[in-house]
Formats: sequence, structure tokens, C-alpha cells
Amino acid sequence: MHTATAAGGAKDSRTHVVVLGGGFAGLGACRTLDDPRVRVTLVDQQNHHLFQPLLYQVATAGLSGTDIAQPLRHIFSGRESVTTLMDEVKRVDLEARRVELAHGTTLTYDYLVVALGARTGYFGHDEWKRHAPGLKTLAEATHLRREFLIAFEKAETAIDPLESDRLLSFVVVGGGPTGVETAGALAELAKRVLTDDFRRIDPTRARVHLIEAAPKLLTMFSEEQSDYTRRRLEQMGVKVHLDCPVSEVGEGYVVAGGKRFESAVTIWAAGVEGSPVTRTMAGAPLDRGGRVKVAPDLSLPGRREVFAAGDIVLLEDAKGVRVPGVAPAATQMGKHAGAQIVADLDGRDRESFVYRDKGSMATIGRTKAVAKVFGMRWTGLPAWLLWMSVHLVFLMGMRNRLRVFLSWIWAYFRWQRGARIIVDTRAPVPDELVKR
Amino acid sequence: MHTATAAGGAKDSRTHVVVLGGGFAGLGACRTLDDPRVRVTLVDQQNHHLFQPLLYQVATAGLSGTDIAQPLRHIFSGRESVTTLMDEVKRVDLEARRVELAHGTTLTYDYLVVALGARTGYFGHDEWKRHAPGLKTLAEATHLRREFLIAFEKAETAIDPLESDRLLSFVVVGGGPTGVETAGALAELAKRVLTDDFRRIDPTRARVHLIEAAPKLLTMFSEEQSDYTRRRLEQMGVKVHLDCPVSEVGEGYVVAGGKRFESAVTIWAAGVEGSPVTRTMAGAPLDRGGRVKVAPDLSLPGRREVFAAGDIVLLEDAKGVRVPGVAPAATQMGKHAGAQIVADLDGRDRESFVYRDKGSMATIGRTKAVAKVFGMRWTGLPAWLLWMSVHLVFLMGMRNRLRVFLSWIWAYFRWQRGARIIVDTRAPVPDELVKR
Repeated sequence: MHTATAAGGAKDSRTHVVVLGGGFAGLGACRTLDDPRVRVTLVDQQNHHLFQPLLYQVATAGLSGTDIAQPLRHIFSGRESVTTLMDEVKRVDLEARRVELAHGTTLTYDYLVVALGARTGYFGHDEWKRHAPGLKTLAEATHLRREFLIAFEKAETAIDPLESDRLLSFVVVGGGPTGVETAGALAELAKRVLTDDFRRIDPTRARVHLIEAAPKLLTMFSEEQSDYTRRRLEQMGVKVHLDCPVSEVGEGYVVAGGKRFESAVTIWAAGVEGSPVTRTMAGAPLDRGGRVKVAPDLSLPGRREVFAAGDIVLLEDAKGVRVPGVAPAATQMGKHAGAQIVADLDGRDRESFVYRDKGSMATIGRTKAVAKVFGMRWTGLPAWLLWMSVHLVFLMGMRNRLRVFLSWIWAYFRWQRGARIIVDTRAPVPDELVKR
Repeated sequence: MHTATAAGGAKDSRTHVVVLGGGFAGLGACRTLDDPRVRVTLVDQQNHHLFQPLLYQVATAGLSGTDIAQPLRHIFSGRESVTTLMDEVKRVDLEARRVELAHGTTLTYDYLVVALGARTGYFGHDEWKRHAPGLKTLAEATHLRREFLIAFEKAETAIDPLESDRLLSFVVVGGGPTGVETAGALAELAKRVLTDDFRRIDPTRARVHLIEAAPKLLTMFSEEQSDYTRRRLEQMGVKVHLDCPVSEVGEGYVVAGGKRFESAVTIWAAGVEGSPVTRTMAGAPLDRGGRVKVAPDLSLPGRREVFAAGDIVLLEDAKGVRVPGVAPAATQMGKHAGAQIVADLDGRDRESFVYRDKGSMATIGRTKAVAKVFGMRWTGLPAWLLWMSVHLVFLMGMRNRLRVFLSWIWAYFRWQRGARIIVDTRAPVPDELVKR
């Protein structure tokens, strides 16, 4: 049952676990697999683990990208048994137990943990993507920051006041946590942070639209909390549109609920779908969005050596709870998958995954947030302080924690954002033109 | 003598000073022009002032780009009389006293301060630029960081060990402060920071070549200090090549001193030339590199209302000292230009510029630097501590100072670099393909 990697060469009697993806699920699996009988190969397209819950603060110039990312190989620098490869997964051959990577390496595995996460989904309208990027990677967040900041700069230099007006319109699609947080942070940027910095335009005139197809924001929260969120956002100057499904997205506009919204920058925070790699896994049961349906122990039905964990999984747990696509659920699934492999090596029985819901929280703006934690509902300042503490604790690396903490303190007392920097003034390049 | 801007509209009786460039010289001028009789329009292509002396630390993953940049309009947020425009200067019409900007604005001025700085010069070989970027902007530094980090990642995934080897070769061209600092930081990255993070390659095998055409490094320093620099760099694993002029730069290689050097990433720190905008200033006396020759008061000969300041200037000062292209000289020139405008308004005589040399310093690596300050020569730890203190003091913004200080402390005690993050894994796009 033990094989060597194509590149490794030398025989190795340890069980080889290949983990695809260095997000919360992948890291959870790697950590549980700290066992002398196991060696791990971790593959990710990026060189870093990304703390996605704070990505919207990078997009809105509050944090620097490097503050919320940690190099994957640095995380496992002290664990000789973990090999990290920055590479793209081309194909998974479940039959031959092989993973093919873009740079030419083929990995054979004893166990496989597929934790490739979700990517932004456009409900079948992939052509909207170029006009409305999602918020899943540092590249996307940096791109959005650039677009937001350039919109204000261009409005200031525009000769035509109508053009100025058009440049100060922003649309956020999707009223989940990411959409709410982005819209709130963007409204604060325009209406509180930038106020004294322009001479020709008035940044407080910027319009931020938050568009949601459902009748409420933050569907996982109670009616009261969701209503509180809407009211607070509106006080902050966000125009909230509920029951407003998007029917068209184009260059500079969004059509939703039969109305046309001008939009200099559109952010898509409305849907997710599984990584396209799952389509190469012949025989794996997938839903329409490419997510993997797993057995109660998180293995693939009929493939005990293959696990899936994190946002890529579609699952009702052993208690019938639909597991949400959030960081704690991903970590728990990753750890569970790792633990089942160790159970196999120990000769113990496998266990079914049970999701332990630690609660949910979303921030709206300065001193405003909602949370349901410890069976209680929190709003306002207590929820906001809780939100900050939890995010600081779960952020990886003491240096990053200090830097983020410092940025937050600064933002609180000075109404400033430290990352209002346009790194590359060149216009973005369509993916088609970029050689990979 | 008073005119309005094209976009401003309303009459304004204040003297209008247009400052081109928000580097050290431009900021120096704006600060001196804090006078109720004056309004200032500051134009820069970037939205930020950049602390260029620390740019090499961004390129070598020690600092985040946002740590050493400050939004220009934020710097002058409290000074209503300063309007900041992020725009590109297309043309300066000295006769009509007009500046044309790329986005359509035309500015008319009473006084003009040209402080557009220098850009990387290739001694007439502009075709080398695509293979050997310079280190002048955040975009360039971020690009280089990406290239360095990707070289190590690709070496780890390469199937062919020869390819691995080739990927771990770096060439720094130019033995001035930027070249010395970059080569030193790169050697430390490979040989001290990354050592435990890879499994297939040995990062300490990376080769860093520092190539200089002159017979010594850091020509502005004494023979002893320059020799100390070379010996320290060699101890750190940098291969120093003196008397070694570059004759060819291509994809993956550099030819210098008759030898061919393999190079996965080449950095050009060898020459500067003036901004191309000076070529549009009909009648302004320029040197071959496009730098402006100014009168002793820093005005253009025969154009008392136009000043040039900073790296764009070619000047021997009133004492016959050739003014170097360093930050303190740029600040002094900018302030001098601003002060002459105020002198005109006061009806006082103009003064000749006298450069006050505060000294020079360059860091080589951890606890290693050279400095000549207060008439004394410093090397080693004292010079390094002095270098750090001076750079922290002159860095703008308390938040940035704290973040940089924190990063340095961290790097010192943990041998870590906090910005080892590849933001965009896509290959770079040639300038030709990018619409502006």
C-alpha cells in the first residue's frame, strides 16, 4: 500500500497522504496527520494560506494583503514529513490513485484529501465574471482595491461632472457576510475616510448599492438581526435592495429587479461553486455546482482512501445539519478527514462527521456587527468586539496578528485606512491575454 | 499674473504653483509653499509618495508595499490650498505656461516646479528592460518579489535538476547602494530565511551575482568601506564581479566582462535618466540622459517662473559640489525651489542652492552597513543601527513607522520575512499588451 512519489525516488515505507489545497480544510488535515507513520504532500496553486474572512478589508484598503496571508511552506517549515508544492492540479485519477500537476509532477497516493475549496459562481453566467470579479483570492482583493481607489482618482480628474458621478457608483451583489462587510467598509471609506482628501469631488456623494435576491440579508441570522443589519447599513449610506435578483451584468452597469444600476466597480459576492478539478475525478458524485457528495466519514462513496473536506463538500452531517461553507466547518472537516486516516493506521473504526456549530458573525461597520454565539444573539458594540477578537485569534502568525491589530487601532482612532495604495496603475489585463 | 485652472473655474487671486511629482523634491516644495498667497496643484502618476530607499526590502519580501507608501492626497488632507491630481504629464508648454495632463485637464501656472524624478536608464539599450526591470516603483518591487519567490517554488517542483539549478541563479547589475542592498537581502533570503522550508531543493545553493562596471562598489565611499562591503557580501555568499561591464541582457542570462551568467531573475540597478517629460519642455537645457541643467537658484535659465528639483536635475551647487541623486538632496532642492517662490512674493532676492551633505549610508545585511556621517566613517553594527534609525525617522507616517519597526524586530529575532507572498501567480504581461 506504500508508493513513492514520481519525483521523490527513494523508497519510503510511510503512508503517503496527498492533500490538495492549503485552506482551512487542508491545514486541518495536515495538522492531524502529524504522525511518524505518515508523510504528507501538500499542493496549492498559491504559495500561501489565506485568511479569507478578512479579505474584504484588503479590498477596501484597510489591510495589506500580506497581513492576512502566511506562506504555506513556512507553516510546515519545522515538519520534515510535509512537502509543500506550489502547483496546479490538472487531473485526479481515482482509479490509478494518481494526481497530475501542471508542472509535470505526478503524485501517487495512499490517501487523498481533496480540499480545493470553492470559487466564485455566476449561476451559469460566466460572462459576467469579467465585469464583476469575486472576492476569493489576494489577486482579486488587490484588483478591487485598485479599482475602488482609481474610481475616486478618476472622478477627481474628470472634466465632465456626469462622468464624475458615474465613477462614484459601486454595486455589491450578494447579501451574505462578504457582501454586507464589503458594502459597509466601502461606504465608510467614501463617507468617513476620504472626506477631506479631495478638492473637486465630494466623496460622500458616492453611491454604494447592495443587491440581494432573497427577501433578507444574512439569511443564517434571525429576522431581527438581519433587519438590524439592513438599518445600520442604510444609516451608513448603503442603498440596500432586497428581493432584487440580478438579470444582467455588463461593463459599467448591473440590471437587477428590473432596474438598471450604474456601476464603476461591481463586486460579486453572490454564489460559490466547487473547484473545476472535481470534474476530472471520474466516478465521484457531484452536485450541479461541482461540489462533492461524501459519505458520513467524509470519504468518497466506494473510495475509502479519498476524502473531501471544506467548501468543496456538499454535506448534511450525521445529525442532519447542512454544513455551511465557513472557516470553522472547513477546519473541522479537514481535521476529521486526517483523523480517519490515523484511525485506519491504528486499526480503529471510522467515525461519522458531526459539525459543531460555534456560531456565526458578520461585521457591518465600526462598532456595528451581528453574532450568534454560545446560544445568544449579539448586536452592536459587543458583537463587534467579539468579531474582532475571534478574527485576531484565528488569524495565523503572531506578526500578522500584531500588524492587523495595529491597523485596526489606527483605523478606529484616526478614521484612516493604511493601505490606500495603488500599486500598479496599469489597467487590468483580461485573463485571455495572460500566458500562464 | 494669476490664472485659474481649466477645471477650477472660479477666479482665484492666489498665485498658482503647479508641482509635478510627489517624491521627496515635490513634497519639499509643497511644504515650503504653505503660504496664504499661494495655492498648489500637485500632479503625480501614482497615488502615493514612495519611500524609495526601502524599496529593495519590498522586492526581497521583508516589507509590504503599503508599509513604505503614503497616499499623496492624505498627506495634504488638512491643507485646503493643495489640490492633488493623479494623472500623467503629457506635455509642458513653457511658452504658454501650461501643463497638459493625460486625462484631459490643462493646468496654467504662475510658477512650475518640475520634480518628476529619474527612471531606470539602460545606457541606450531599452530592449534590456523587459529582461531586467529596475527598482523605482512599487509595481516593479512587487513584480521582482513575485519573480524571486516563484523561482524558488519552480525549482522545488522542477523535474530536471539542471532546471532547478538554473532557477536558483540571480543577477543584480549595479554596485551602488540599491544593488548592494538588493544583493545582500537576496543572499540572506536564500541562505538564512528559506533554509528549512524546502524538501527537494537546497535554497542555500542559490547563486547571487553582483555585477559592477567600476573597479569598486559604492563609489561614494572610501576604499576601505567599499572593500569592507565587498568582503561582507562575499561572506554572505554573494559573488561580486568588479570591472565587469554588461554587454548583453537576454531572457535568462546576462553577458558581462566577457562572461555569460545564467539568471532566472535579473535586477537592473545600474543607471538612471530623467523623466521623458523633460523632452517636451522646448527650450529647456537637457543633458543626454534627459536631466535638466538649472541656474544656481534651481530655475531654468531664462525662465524665472520654472524650477526643477530632485533627481531630474543635473547640478553643481554654488560651492561646486555635484549634487547626488539621493533623498536628502531632493528634499533640499524642493524646499529651496519653494522658498524662492515665497521670496519673489515677499519681494526678496533669490538665493543660490547650496547642498548640505548629511552623509551617505548603505546597508549590506543584518548588522552590517557602511556610513559616513558627521564627518566620521562607520562600519558594521553601529552603521547598521544608524541606518535603521535614520530610515525609520524619515519614513512618513507613524503607522508605517510602527509596521516597519515591527517587521525589522521580527526579522531580526526570527530570521523571517513577513511578505513572502505571491499575490498574483499569473505570469507578467508585457507592457505592449496592456491598455493604459
